[in-house]
Amino acid sequence: MSDQPTSTSILDRVSGPADLKALSDGELSQLAAELRRETIDTVSRTGGHLGSSLGVVELTVALHAVFNTPLDKLIWDVGHQCYPHKILTGRRDRMGTLRQAGGLSGFTKRSESPYDPFGAAHSSTSISAALGFAVGREMGMPVGDTIAVIGDGAITAGMAYEALNHAGHLKSRLFVVLNDNDMSIAPPVGALQRYLNQIAAKGPLAALKAAAEGFESQLPGPVREGARRARQMVTGLPGGATLFEEFGFEYIGPIDGHDMDQLLTTLRAARARASGPVLIHCVTVKGKGYAPAERADDKYHGVAKFDVATGQQAKSASNAPSYTAVFGQRLTEEAARDPAIVAITAAMPGGTGLDVMARRFPARVFDVGIAEQHGVTFAAGLAAAGMKPFCAIYSSFLQRGYDQIVHDVALQNLPVRFAIDRAGLVGQDGATHAGAFDICFLANLPNMTVMAAGDEADLCHMIATAVAHDQGPIAFRYPRGEGMGVDMPDRGIPLPLGKGRILREGRDVALLSFGAHLGEVLAAADLLEQDGISVTVADARFAKPLDTDLIDRLLNHHPALITVEQGSTGGFGALVLHYLAASGLLEQGRAIRTMTLPDRFIDQASPTQMYDWAGMSRIHIRDLAVGLSRPTRGTKVVRLC
Amino acid sequence: MSDQPTSTSILDRVSGPADLKALSDGELSQLAAELRRETIDTVSRTGGHLGSSLGVVELTVALHAVFNTPLDKLIWDVGHQCYPHKILTGRRDRMGTLRQAGGLSGFTKRSESPYDPFGAAHSSTSISAALGFAVGREMGMPVGDTIAVIGDGAITAGMAYEALNHAGHLKSRLFVVLNDNDMSIAPPVGALQRYLNQIAAKGPLAALKAAAEGFESQLPGPVREGARRARQMVTGLPGGATLFEEFGFEYIGPIDGHDMDQLLTTLRAARARASGPVLIHCVTVKGKGYAPAERADDKYHGVAKFDVATGQQAKSASNAPSYTAVFGQRLTEEAARDPAIVAITAAMPGGTGLDVMARRFPARVFDVGIAEQHGVTFAAGLAAAGMKPFCAIYSSFLQRGYDQIVHDVALQNLPVRFAIDRAGLVGQDGATHAGAFDICFLANLPNMTVMAAGDEADLCHMIATAVAHDQGPIAFRYPRGEGMGVDMPDRGIPLPLGKGRILREGRDVALLSFGAHLGEVLAAADLLEQDGISVTVADARFAKPLDTDLIDRLLNHHPALITVEQGSTGGFGALVLHYLAASGLLEQGRAIRTMTLPDRFIDQASPTQMYDWAGMSRIHIRDLAVGLSRPTRGTKVVRLC
Repeated sequence: MSDQPTSTSILDRVSGPADLKALSDGELSQLAAELRRETIDTVSRTGGHLGSSLGVVELTVALHAVFNTPLDKLIWDVGHQCYPHKILTGRRDRMGTLRQAGGLSGFTKRSESPYDPFGAAHSSTSISAALGFAVGREMGMPVGDTIAVIGDGAITAGMAYEALNHAGHLKSRLFVVLNDNDMSIAPPVGALQRYLNQIAAKGPLAALKAAAEGFESQLPGPVREGARRARQMVTGLPGGATLFEEFGFEYIGPIDGHDMDQLLTTLRAARARASGPVLIHCVTVKGKGYAPAERADDKYHGVAKFDVATGQQAKSASNAPSYTAVFGQRLTEEAARDPAIVAITAAMPGGTGLDVMARRFPARVFDVGIAEQHGVTFAAGLAAAGMKPFCAIYSSFLQRGYDQIVHDVALQNLPVRFAIDRAGLVGQDGATHAGAFDICFLANLPNMTVMAAGDEADLCHMIATAVAHDQGPIAFRYPRGEGMGVDMPDRGIPLPLGKGRILREGRDVALLSFGAHLGEVLAAADLLEQDGISVTVADARFAKPLDTDLIDRLLNHHPALITVEQGSTGGFGALVLHYLAASGLLEQGRAIRTMTLPDRFIDQASPTQMYDWAGMSRIHIRDLAVGLSRPTRGTKVVRLC
Repeated sequence: MSDQPTSTSILDRVSGPADLKALSDGELSQLAAELRRETIDTVSRTGGHLGSSLGVVELTVALHAVFNTPLDKLIWDVGHQCYPHKILTGRRDRMGTLRQAGGLSGFTKRSESPYDPFGAAHSSTSISAALGFAVGREMGMPVGDTIAVIGDGAITAGMAYEALNHAGHLKSRLFVVLNDNDMSIAPPVGALQRYLNQIAAKGPLAALKAAAEGFESQLPGPVREGARRARQMVTGLPGGATLFEEFGFEYIGPIDGHDMDQLLTTLRAARARASGPVLIHCVTVKGKGYAPAERADDKYHGVAKFDVATGQQAKSASNAPSYTAVFGQRLTEEAARDPAIVAITAAMPGGTGLDVMARRFPARVFDVGIAEQHGVTFAAGLAAAGMKPFCAIYSSFLQRGYDQIVHDVALQNLPVRFAIDRAGLVGQDGATHAGAFDICFLANLPNMTVMAAGDEADLCHMIATAVAHDQGPIAFRYPRGEGMGVDMPDRGIPLPLGKGRILREGRDVALLSFGAHLGEVLAAADLLEQDGISVTVADARFAKPLDTDLIDRLLNHHPALITVEQGSTGGFGALVLHYLAASGLLEQGRAIRTMTLPDRFIDQASPTQMYDWAGMSRIHIRDLAVGLSRPTRGTKVVRLC
């Protein structure tokens, strides 16, 4: 921190972006230095997405200095780089609550501030949204300029390309700042990335001002060719035409995203003269200005609380391996035994645990970039060719590949294996990252087999089940975080399809769990036994095919049945109800409840807190069961102890 | 047809692609002419996708002559241009059954032929699938070359870009044939399209052979620059580097896709020498060689049966306006009254009926191209800016924008209006186009309002409801085809949110319909009354919010309740069951059934036939109700009359 300012004298005078208009360019540079220090200090106390935020400190200051937010709409793609933006836009005093219950979101969020015109968290949405605002302005809505800031990882997604294509067609005035730090979460892959590197490598940054001035002077028309030649000097590319110009954008860059003079000059010129879509290619360093972050492989993408002086991150005490680690390790072991196994990740090799397999079998792990649509159909092609593809995508991101799952995988009954991490509520990343809908959107598809792991040992068995399952697509979901600490098998054994298991037997109420809420269900059973209520706990393992024998037995031997799942309505519980309706069993008049995530999005907190808000804690399960198993059925029982 | 051959002497000798190897280049040209005639004759008798197929007749012959299908994997994007391919690959004698019950699919289909290695129908999947096959080959699977044929419309989708990006990164040997006919279903839009036109316009096709030879000679390395210059001559672009080369593809073209010599020379050269990904830019004419098709605006994209001599298409007698026409007309009328209304289509202005609005308000209808992901978030941006966007996307294509619906629309509670045409089973386009899942994937999302039109008059009211609904997202679904012929209101009136309607009242059984199966439900009620069973028929109108008062009343006054919807499990019926479980009403032991689409994909036929296969005809509804309303509840009743 020796190169950091020791005071925040300018930042202390900034209560909002309007205050930046009064500052000189030199003061803006000083403000950026103070903002960097403030960001580091803040995240050292809260944890969070540090690297991305440090990369855009100067850019944040320059954008707010040049544009007039919130009338001008500044849209941060993904939004995890928005901490300096939050500090500058009236949320400085709440930064200590970042990503905590009741606190600031870790992403941009419309309900949090008028300076967040469009929330984010999933990548590659910013250009589409900005174009929507730009068209709204043209149709008379009270909108100023629109600026999308998008990373070089995020721009590889098909959605961003669709938006560039449409924006180039519409020719609306629109600014896209390409924040090129050569990193998404992992280093980005793909041909576009190579191309961007080529531009950045060839572009002598010192020549930038000439380029920016060239941009200014070229707009009337006749001098366009001169400007083109100027850009050619900068880009080093034949003809000076970049990919973005082929799409109808004016291209400026590359510029040094940490040089306040370059940023201000370029943004002012662009703002003064642009008539259509402009792409400003801004080269930044992820983790910039904080040595431990710059040195780290992941550039401190997401960090725990840390010591500012050393960069040492706090370690959380861990009793059991994470589901992610179990998946990475066990799939690698399966891959060692079966050469047909390959794995696909969409830019998340570390997050999915596939980095473990990639180290041992680098040619058998495919990082397709932020490209879930392609990733799913690429896996379908691999399956059609005879391979055993494991498509490892977080629950909420798998939503990006939904049509491909329906049309390319399920409809053709191709044996793609979907490994779905981050199922259920995920904690600090909040509602945007919740894996709430995968049971619903997968288990209602023909040909699909859908499993959920009740504990980390069952995850091993489900991986083995998926390896063995060549008859069609199969999916297994598991949550973020640690397992339950159960004994681990030496090797996973394929499970009988569509068969659950009974973990404890009782009389008064049956709890039928699907997936990782099993621990909470067992804890609820303990509470119920303390109340003198005898409980059966079963783990369905499969939402599709349903274990109808198990359901029949539970219903026949208990006056009440409660299904529990870490997912929305329309999923496991719904399929149980559909079955009970179709088979006529509902006519028995048993008490049946389906415990699912509620009909609202749930803000960030600890997963335990979030499930409590969701009405799914062990206490909620206990109370629901008590209400069903006492004579005063259907009403809340006043407990005696 | 005067320019068509009068016999099929060569085609008659072809029983499969292997037979093409024995033909001279001249005979292949003749075969193409015969194949074109055969295609026209076939489609004149069956109807179908004619224009696209006529555009690729020569390409189909050339690909099968040069490559070794089915070991080589030839993947037709979308697949509606595959009729000549089907004729050449052993399905000529079944072409009369095209798109009919029990007949050939209108698209490629794995279960139909080994020459269809990857089925299609939704666009832009071919490069991803082909890359999967190519990687499978590299890993030892029995796969030869892989060739994706993709149109200039389909390649604008983000998914195709993701695949190009990944293929350029992997460098696997792979052939992508860009079938550039300057048309998708409507003329394509977007900057990429302008770019392709620019290449095609500048490229003197006569110079092609030099380019193809250049491609051959350049591969060793030193002469690369010479080849580049040759291509520059062809492309007319500075530096000769095309967009595709930026992505790491070798680029050949543009070539004349109706010149058999050019095609054969180019494909042979490419096949002989390619080591990595190659893009062959092939310019074709949609409807080529059949004057009525070439002249038509839509190039006979999809036609009814027609008279070959005149091109006159058979008209089906229509008693009621189509839902599509009602939507187009009524939304236009609403737009005339409310300047905030705008509409978005993903390359389907005609199919969605938005062409009507576009003629009257051209600046307020946005065709984003085949880009559902962008389209949904663009609509979200428009809504955030204060507009009233109607996002009109077919049910099955809306699956492409699912994450954007969750993350950008529902989570932010933005008032995007989703107009969902082609909901339910769609007839000749079969399983790939069935709108089976939208109720399930929308109605389980927080903040969403989901309606379905029971008839075309209700569609008017639902459009009005959507216009008035500014509190959050709202969706309304309606089927392909004609309405029920009901009286139409002068103007739609906003419906009370979450309120259904009762159409007839009875005692013995309640039928609760959601959406366009209402006509069939009413017909079943007539049958039941004939059997002496007194029936209540209600139209829920809303799947979310549910009309719980209505459900309570139905359940309290009838021994049996049957929900009916043209959609999968996990949708309306599931939400009714979830409600009944949560409210304790299931304990009453009433008979409840949820009639949904079954757990399988349903092949093409008439919609009536498909619903019969689905077990959802009026007879099925009648039989189910009879079983529930007689004393022998739960068992099949032998009827007495």
